[in-house]
Amino acid sequence: MPNSSTALGSLKAFLVGKPIPSRLADQQRLSRVTGLAVLSSDPLSSVAYATEEILRVLVLAGTGALWIASPIAAVIAGLMIIVCFSYRQTIHAYPGGGGAYSVARENLGTQAGLIAASALLLDYVMTVAVSIAAGVAALTSAFPQVHVNRVELALVFVAILAVGNLRGVRESGRIFAVPTYFFIGMMVLLITGGALRFLLGDVAPVPPPEAVGPAGNLAVLGVFLVLRAFSNGCTALTGVEAISNGVSAFRPPEARNAAATLMLMIGLAVTMFLGTTLLAQAYGVVPVDDETVVSQLARLVFGGRGVAYYLVQAATMLILVLAANTAYNDFPRLSSIVARDKFMPRQFMNQGDRLAFSNGIIVLSVLAGMLLVFFQGDTHALIPLYMIGVFVSFTLSQAGMVRKEWRERPARWRAKVAINAVGAVSTGVVLVVVAATKFSEGAWLILLLIPVQVAVFKAIRAHYRLVGRQLSIDGWRAAPVLHHTVVVPVGGMNRAVAEALRYARTLTGDVRAVYVDVGRRSREEVRRDWLEHGMGIPLDILESSFRSLLSPLMEYIDRVRGEEPDSFLTVVLPEFVPARWWHHLLHNQRALLIKAALLFRSNVVVVNVPYHLRR
Amino acid sequence: MPNSSTALGSLKAFLVGKPIPSRLADQQRLSRVTGLAVLSSDPLSSVAYATEEILRVLVLAGTGALWIASPIAAVIAGLMIIVCFSYRQTIHAYPGGGGAYSVARENLGTQAGLIAASALLLDYVMTVAVSIAAGVAALTSAFPQVHVNRVELALVFVAILAVGNLRGVRESGRIFAVPTYFFIGMMVLLITGGALRFLLGDVAPVPPPEAVGPAGNLAVLGVFLVLRAFSNGCTALTGVEAISNGVSAFRPPEARNAAATLMLMIGLAVTMFLGTTLLAQAYGVVPVDDETVVSQLARLVFGGRGVAYYLVQAATMLILVLAANTAYNDFPRLSSIVARDKFMPRQFMNQGDRLAFSNGIIVLSVLAGMLLVFFQGDTHALIPLYMIGVFVSFTLSQAGMVRKEWRERPARWRAKVAINAVGAVSTGVVLVVVAATKFSEGAWLILLLIPVQVAVFKAIRAHYRLVGRQLSIDGWRAAPVLHHTVVVPVGGMNRAVAEALRYARTLTGDVRAVYVDVGRRSREEVRRDWLEHGMGIPLDILESSFRSLLSPLMEYIDRVRGEEPDSFLTVVLPEFVPARWWHHLLHNQRALLIKAALLFRSNVVVVNVPYHLRR
Repeated sequence: MPNSSTALGSLKAFLVGKPIPSRLADQQRLSRVTGLAVLSSDPLSSVAYATEEILRVLVLAGTGALWIASPIAAVIAGLMIIVCFSYRQTIHAYPGGGGAYSVARENLGTQAGLIAASALLLDYVMTVAVSIAAGVAALTSAFPQVHVNRVELALVFVAILAVGNLRGVRESGRIFAVPTYFFIGMMVLLITGGALRFLLGDVAPVPPPEAVGPAGNLAVLGVFLVLRAFSNGCTALTGVEAISNGVSAFRPPEARNAAATLMLMIGLAVTMFLGTTLLAQAYGVVPVDDETVVSQLARLVFGGRGVAYYLVQAATMLILVLAANTAYNDFPRLSSIVARDKFMPRQFMNQGDRLAFSNGIIVLSVLAGMLLVFFQGDTHALIPLYMIGVFVSFTLSQAGMVRKEWRERPARWRAKVAINAVGAVSTGVVLVVVAATKFSEGAWLILLLIPVQVAVFKAIRAHYRLVGRQLSIDGWRAAPVLHHTVVVPVGGMNRAVAEALRYARTLTGDVRAVYVDVGRRSREEVRRDWLEHGMGIPLDILESSFRSLLSPLMEYIDRVRGEEPDSFLTVVLPEFVPARWWHHLLHNQRALLIKAALLFRSNVVVVNVPYHLRR
Repeated sequence: MPNSSTALGSLKAFLVGKPIPSRLADQQRLSRVTGLAVLSSDPLSSVAYATEEILRVLVLAGTGALWIASPIAAVIAGLMIIVCFSYRQTIHAYPGGGGAYSVARENLGTQAGLIAASALLLDYVMTVAVSIAAGVAALTSAFPQVHVNRVELALVFVAILAVGNLRGVRESGRIFAVPTYFFIGMMVLLITGGALRFLLGDVAPVPPPEAVGPAGNLAVLGVFLVLRAFSNGCTALTGVEAISNGVSAFRPPEARNAAATLMLMIGLAVTMFLGTTLLAQAYGVVPVDDETVVSQLARLVFGGRGVAYYLVQAATMLILVLAANTAYNDFPRLSSIVARDKFMPRQFMNQGDRLAFSNGIIVLSVLAGMLLVFFQGDTHALIPLYMIGVFVSFTLSQAGMVRKEWRERPARWRAKVAINAVGAVSTGVVLVVVAATKFSEGAWLILLLIPVQVAVFKAIRAHYRLVGRQLSIDGWRAAPVLHHTVVVPVGGMNRAVAEALRYARTLTGDVRAVYVDVGRRSREEVRRDWLEHGMGIPLDILESSFRSLLSPLMEYIDRVRGEEPDSFLTVVLPEFVPARWWHHLLHNQRALLIKAALLFRSNVVVVNVPYHLRR
């Protein structure tokens, strides 16, 4: 029997892997070690560009202003620690996971929940785009000659991530454990090595800063520029919420494992971010267009482009591209939760053969790919769009926690409220700063998209409710079926028609054959044929003045339907199925046309009776 | 009632016009005046490039060789007259039309007929491509600045012709009568004006020919070059057969009107072709790349680019683009005849609302468009592919006439045989000359395509015969229907499912509902629901270990089918139809998946029972 889906099935098995039975779902959970690798690559990897994004703004006021990077980085590190303790409480309060959406919805209402969901989904798309763009930048810093192909390269990485994630959770953990720990190792090596050489005085002397004092520099810089630099640096915080959203992916005890992983992650991120920023300052690195700051540092610390340099670049590129993987875990999971609440199309709830939410993975890949193409894979152009979503969800999530603890009064509630309130206020302030300083650079787009998306969420829910009410079985009474009429359009006599007539006769006693006279054969001939092979079924011959098969037939069907409006009317279409698909090209698709025309007639049921040709 | 086909219908009405009833078909016939306009633009228009194609070859041997154009043109003119008389006999012998295909098939056998059909169809495609390319060349000669857009321009003209012809026969006659007669007028003006100024000595002296005699020139040229020039000039003959193919499109008496039109057309064509060639020589015109010979002549005769010059260019462009219209009359008509004989897909027989063979028109447009894009709208590159088809059909058609007259011995049969024999032999000789001199320039492609196409024709006919035999009602005996089982897959209880069950119960006593357990609801809950709303129909619950709906269902259906192989098995799918098409995006398309999976199961009938939502 021909089956065109076999080849597609093999391709799917090759790309996605064999199906996993539902009962094995628990074995796909994450340990702390794999959890750190899967969910922490985003915040850890931002070390690769957060320092640089600060310096790129400061350098506008001259190289003498670069020293301000260190105090800014210190403030950001403090913010990271605040957010860490705030989310630690969320993890314990919501061991089922769900993050900002669940917390905000439960404590602040549906509207707040939908804003958080919208912000997070946009954030995940941006995470994929920014991380991959920065990863490609690490690669092109090491090999400047591939710079021209960066969009294509970025799309290849997106494709690899999509396939990896369609294969399922644990395997992506396995794939990604190696690069995450490799990156941590190389950064520790770079920072300690760089610090040692600096302390030993083994460094080329840094050109002396311009002869202006700190106060003078600040005046030159302006408060706005400092705030812009701070906003840029806040990219270091992106992705922190991934662990709290993914609690349920951890092995039991889920909450404890997740909280421990969070603390470890923040500790590493703060150390690496501060280390990189101080090192950049110690070595007097100035941001340039075609080489990243980390690449410059690695060159200076390891004395040129040697083995160690290339290892740092490779690790940076790998962790950045894989940071996108955080979003590949959370976007599909959050989509499925929002879809379960009927705010998104229910297709996002479908788990594939390998337990992955396939549709979410595919939608995320397509959106991120479009962003990369549109912004030509440029990290700096994407950054302004990035942080709005992150800080909206931070603020809503922690404000929700404050509300919850205030109401529920758990043990030590005052301390808990204080911690979450500090978190909510500080991330809220940062949100305002980011929105103000980045508005014209692209943040406006996200500020516009969030309310639009919330409106769409609500429209979708309204639709599902409406459909649900219309389909509800409550109060439904089966009307008695008075009659069943079957109409069989025939174009001549052959085995396919005979089979259809034979089938039609099993359905009801009232079968009517219809022949539309388009002038091909004489009516006498048609009637003679029918007498011989028509099985005694009455034949109606219809006039067609425009050689159209369709309109006389539709008029006839409407007329029959009018006779007894409460009865069923079935149109049985004889159809022969050719042995090869391309044989279809040699046959008129009249059955298809009739079917399409009847699609919008209610109470008419269309049946194709297939007659399979063998050759 | 929502009907998505309304907008499409309006667009069609705007482009194609209102439907024409079958009984008005006769009123769409052509008079001599419109017949000349519709069917003669091809041979008449070749005046615009035939002379130039001769000169382009001769100039390779130096400007001194250009004088040979006149004798070559005289030979070609003689050939045109021979072909004219030969085809005049064909028209009278075959007043039903049909041309080379019918004549060759009837008198020389199926193989010869198919070769002729293939050659003609290729010829028509080339006619569209070459004529439009030359028409665009006339335009770009007058306005050199539009030269860069010639492919786009050519495609616009193809689109205009396609739409014009989809509107039906007579209207295209009307549209095209004006330009044809305008062109004839302008050419007569150009030739008489040019001749007068030449005879009055009112012409800038032509640079004297190089001091070599005719014999010397011939030696320089070589016989091959002369034959190539002759081959190129034979483009003047293309399209002559259009009238004999289209006899049935004329008003009665069809044959007399067609024959008279043919004689008039050849007279005009010979006069204009010879006139242009002699004029080119008198004025010493040398072919150049970016201006046509006719454009140069018009400039010289009318003294620069004045009103008269632009009128000549406009007329040339119009007739050339409209020459393509000849093919738009004949390609669809010939396709429909070949399709009626089952050598081409039967879709080519479909006459649209406006009595035009729509599919033929569309296929012709697409093929010609592809040629124009591939050859970048360059007339000279297309010419070598052009004439093989023309002369193959000339030769076969006239050889067929010889055979017919020899067998039937009509009045004055000896004279008739003589005329057709001269025609057959001379066009056969030209065919060999063209094939030999143009082989490497592209004629090989056509010589390869013709046998391939003939093989495809035969395969199509074999397929139709095979299908016909498999479908033949002869010897068919209706097997008694022992049993009819109906399977209804259900995913829960709602009004769409209830409606499907209600429908299923009218079909047979053996209805079985099936529920696939993918772990969404407990089995007890499902059974409880069923007891309440299941109408007493038995429910089978199937296990699914991979969360797949499809495979357990397919296994179940195969099992049921195995129970009683001779019975009918119907799968009734509940389906709700949303009120708006985009609502489909919000619902899983499970019914579609099940339907696709059942497509290749024979003896299984699939029925969608639609439940229409109102909002």
